[in-house]
Amino acid sequence: MILEKIHSPADVKALSREETERLCVELRRFLVDQVSKTGGHLASNLGAVELTVALHRVFDTASDRLVFDVGHQCYVHKALTGRQELFSTLRTFGGLSGFPKPYESGHDAFIAGHASNSVSVALGMARARTLLKENYTVIALIGDGALTGGLAYEGLNNAGESGEPLIVILNDNGMSINPNVGAMSNHLSRLRTRPGYYHFKKWYRNALGNSEFGMKVYRFNHRIKTAVKKTLWPGSTLFEDMGFTYLGPVDGHNLDRLCHVLQWAKELNRPVVVHVNTIKGKGYPFAEQDPGKFHGIAPFDPETGLVKKKEINSFSHVFGNALTEYAQRDGRVCAITAAMEDGTGLHHFAKTLPERFFDVGIAEGHAVSMAAGMAKQGLIPVFAVYSSFLQRSYDMLIHDVALSNLHVVLAVDRAGLVGADGETHHGSLDALFLPEIPNMTVLCPSNYAELRKMLEQALFEIEGPVAVRYPRGGEGAYRDDSGSAPIVCLRPGTDITLVSYGTLINNVLEAAEELERQGISAQVLKLNCIAPMEKGCLMRSVRATRRLLVVEDSFGAGCVGQRIAAMMAEEGWAPEKLILKNLGKTIAPQGTVAELQRSYGLDARGIVESVLEECR
Amino acid sequence: MILEKIHSPADVKALSREETERLCVELRRFLVDQVSKTGGHLASNLGAVELTVALHRVFDTASDRLVFDVGHQCYVHKALTGRQELFSTLRTFGGLSGFPKPYESGHDAFIAGHASNSVSVALGMARARTLLKENYTVIALIGDGALTGGLAYEGLNNAGESGEPLIVILNDNGMSINPNVGAMSNHLSRLRTRPGYYHFKKWYRNALGNSEFGMKVYRFNHRIKTAVKKTLWPGSTLFEDMGFTYLGPVDGHNLDRLCHVLQWAKELNRPVVVHVNTIKGKGYPFAEQDPGKFHGIAPFDPETGLVKKKEINSFSHVFGNALTEYAQRDGRVCAITAAMEDGTGLHHFAKTLPERFFDVGIAEGHAVSMAAGMAKQGLIPVFAVYSSFLQRSYDMLIHDVALSNLHVVLAVDRAGLVGADGETHHGSLDALFLPEIPNMTVLCPSNYAELRKMLEQALFEIEGPVAVRYPRGGEGAYRDDSGSAPIVCLRPGTDITLVSYGTLINNVLEAAEELERQGISAQVLKLNCIAPMEKGCLMRSVRATRRLLVVEDSFGAGCVGQRIAAMMAEEGWAPEKLILKNLGKTIAPQGTVAELQRSYGLDARGIVESVLEECR
Repeated sequence: MILEKIHSPADVKALSREETERLCVELRRFLVDQVSKTGGHLASNLGAVELTVALHRVFDTASDRLVFDVGHQCYVHKALTGRQELFSTLRTFGGLSGFPKPYESGHDAFIAGHASNSVSVALGMARARTLLKENYTVIALIGDGALTGGLAYEGLNNAGESGEPLIVILNDNGMSINPNVGAMSNHLSRLRTRPGYYHFKKWYRNALGNSEFGMKVYRFNHRIKTAVKKTLWPGSTLFEDMGFTYLGPVDGHNLDRLCHVLQWAKELNRPVVVHVNTIKGKGYPFAEQDPGKFHGIAPFDPETGLVKKKEINSFSHVFGNALTEYAQRDGRVCAITAAMEDGTGLHHFAKTLPERFFDVGIAEGHAVSMAAGMAKQGLIPVFAVYSSFLQRSYDMLIHDVALSNLHVVLAVDRAGLVGADGETHHGSLDALFLPEIPNMTVLCPSNYAELRKMLEQALFEIEGPVAVRYPRGGEGAYRDDSGSAPIVCLRPGTDITLVSYGTLINNVLEAAEELERQGISAQVLKLNCIAPMEKGCLMRSVRATRRLLVVEDSFGAGCVGQRIAAMMAEEGWAPEKLILKNLGKTIAPQGTVAELQRSYGLDARGIVESVLEECR
Repeated sequence: MILEKIHSPADVKALSREETERLCVELRRFLVDQVSKTGGHLASNLGAVELTVALHRVFDTASDRLVFDVGHQCYVHKALTGRQELFSTLRTFGGLSGFPKPYESGHDAFIAGHASNSVSVALGMARARTLLKENYTVIALIGDGALTGGLAYEGLNNAGESGEPLIVILNDNGMSINPNVGAMSNHLSRLRTRPGYYHFKKWYRNALGNSEFGMKVYRFNHRIKTAVKKTLWPGSTLFEDMGFTYLGPVDGHNLDRLCHVLQWAKELNRPVVVHVNTIKGKGYPFAEQDPGKFHGIAPFDPETGLVKKKEINSFSHVFGNALTEYAQRDGRVCAITAAMEDGTGLHHFAKTLPERFFDVGIAEGHAVSMAAGMAKQGLIPVFAVYSSFLQRSYDMLIHDVALSNLHVVLAVDRAGLVGADGETHHGSLDALFLPEIPNMTVLCPSNYAELRKMLEQALFEIEGPVAVRYPRGGEGAYRDDSGSAPIVCLRPGTDITLVSYGTLINNVLEAAEELERQGISAQVLKLNCIAPMEKGCLMRSVRATRRLLVVEDSFGAGCVGQRIAAMMAEEGWAPEKLILKNLGKTIAPQGTVAELQRSYGLDARGIVESVLEECR
């Protein structure tokens, strides 16, 4: 085994050509082996094996800065930079992150998780290098999916013009998570099929020789060459229009060519785009055939490709089916996703009502502004989006939707703690920022029945912008439909009022039972609507019990508990005891949702402990 | 006078060719005349006279939807759609808005103010039109400056591929507010100088005739034509790569050509980009020479072009000079702007330290992600940005800056109420959303001396992300440096504690004096730092006075006053009387800052009235 002897990138550089090829074979086996046990992002990593090995042969990631975009393709990089043994802990509490993390290794230049920021970050780093007169190469590694994000365009637009030496590697597998969309995608498809360009450049360069002198001539002639090329080679690329030198397309599974083109890009010492064609899932037939399924996958049987634990029903799934039903009833209802057809449960909708399904690519800002235009002209658009990605649409929600009080419906999936994806993916802010936006209604179903009902209310009863927020995964033990009051009392009690919303209400109900066994009578209130917030029932209840505890999996400053406390203070009153349980100021790590709730004391045990501590 | 007889677009359509030319002359005179009295956006409107008149001759804005981008060029449109007489009230409280407002006229299809959203909104409208089987044309009118925003790219990327009939008019004056930057801008410059393309297309079309049959042949042949053209006309445009039919460039001051090309675009019935070259400030020599000065201008003498009231010193100006000074002292300090060099006071910095000054175009998201990369590699980047535009960077602040606790400094200009720009431009949210982001420090200077000091602290003393927020305009009577404590007591008192931050402290101090005359002793606390928030001093003071009033010009839900109240409630205590004075849930209109403060009761009088009402 070669892989076992790789403890750092230096070991990769020391391999022979043949050994390097074998390393790639072993890496693929390693990836399938590991991810089949832990689950994780498989297909994109399989596609990036040769590319990552080539990067480590040409660059030194201890000093050169390799900025991943999204970061789904960082596993090979982690395995080659001293983190092989940690793979059994992948995506677990306290274990190896599935995304690049500078706190984990100096070889991880920057965090990643959200899409399309890599070129901007890399340009910032390149500018720092130049201004501080240091000497390293900066590389942004971006997938074709992330190129649909406007942030990537802003970065390219600025980087191409800057003249600042940096390398943008476009890892083009023709997919984002689902097949790619948009004009940029069409443009890339065209480029992908241009076979001769690389050869032309190679011929030209070989004619000059590989000597230092030859390189100088090459660089000196670059401008003239570009002019010549435009004549010999009709049709320029979008990247060249933007000021980059474009190298490619290169076969992303041919190590020699990859090393050659990366070396070349490094020597050019200006903004360069290297266009690499890869096959998502490469080398593992099940993943090649269904790369979407193997994008992010639960533990599976490597022999059959079948996922071990059958997928349980989920809020996403229930949402997708309910929306399809409502849309069949009313022709104005449309569904919008930002490259998350499967993740948001819209697969069925897309098949059933394709003319009213819009996948806009990774472009959350555009999704909201487009929805605003649709709503203004009489449609009922529903944008299904993960909470942490909705952060990208913040201004569009305010400016295009809320200021005009337009009836846009947000289906906010992955609200609250999300689990294994960790820091970058938790929906820790939507319960704070959505209620602050004027005209916004925010509904919080606690189970599938409520999701179906609240979605229907959001579509057909409530005016203006409405968000329905629900967590990743499935419902808990509480499955009643609590009715349509903004606040409902699920359990009477006299000693303390416990308040929560969404599925956390399960923990609260469990805690109340335990407290009862301990002789404390807890009243349980469930917030069905956190914006606008209804005062009356809350005030009466808390005045009666004199104590209040609010549980939520959001950051602390500006949280719902604080807003409740402020409402009471405006009435000139404070509970004898107020306990706010939330994430405080800390950024939650990865782990199962249960582990994370435990660590923040948001589970039943944590709630009981707080009550006992404060009320005895 | 022709203009006087224009009461609706129908009157424009009824004019002869010659009368239309005269109308344009009169419109320019009208614009200079009106804006010289009221102030407003002049130069972009002067450049868009013929274009707007042509739009109203070809389209019917009562049913066709004309979506402005930013909207600085909407004055001519307003003048032609029955709002001439309102121009004396332009940008005043209760008067005509300087931006498109659907509540003002059915001819205004959508609000505008923030950049780059028009294509997305227009695509949404076009989709609604098609799905609801209605029949109107949708037009997005976007300036070349707004094209640097990623949102525009997301919209174009999706619209080009959609095949949905819509017209994007690119009003290209080679400027945004200041001269334009970026690769897209270079691309446009190249296009701008291609003289013959329009003629080629015109020749081709004329050869087919203008008959209905000819048009059908034209549309049928469109694909073939594109192929032919690629051979005859080397080099395609970025817009064609994206799936649009590109028409242009067209002389934006030639009415006949404009009408012709717009008619043509309408008939094509697919995604079309019409590239129009205009001259910013056209027809008024002072504005043509210095379009930046006449972009947004105070009342001026139309004979001399000189602004009547000399510009007072401003927070922006003080910030720019102080930052230059600190950057001269420390080579790591850099300045970033998103196309607002003048507005943010960075003009002097740009001249003095050009190698550390970065104008990234209208691309606030990129600005923050780039700053994160700079900070990661050892620079101290300062992003100077208007509060309401910083909303565009929300996710980048969280994901790229806060999660890694990077030392990026935000100079948040135009925080709070901004005055005449109105709804879309008020900084009503930064005091809410910035403190909620983990690791973020938020400083609030009340005058120039404090701005200088706090900026220095932000740069050299505080770790992690720091925002320094200050309002539009100048300082008030309070000019002391209150020291570096997070909370300072500016005035002792026994009956009530009055709390505020920033320049609103002037109103509070004035109110405290008036209250003293009325026999009420008010303590005044000033928050220098609203995140993190210090508890001790606040608690002691409010416990002593038993009453608390907090004044701020932000929305109410999640405001600083609520967070203070919650802090106290967590101590098991509420003031006898809590008065939170803020914008509540309402979106503040336009008007002078004084008028707006008055209408919300945030001025000294409003504070006094609240105290008297509640405390007597």
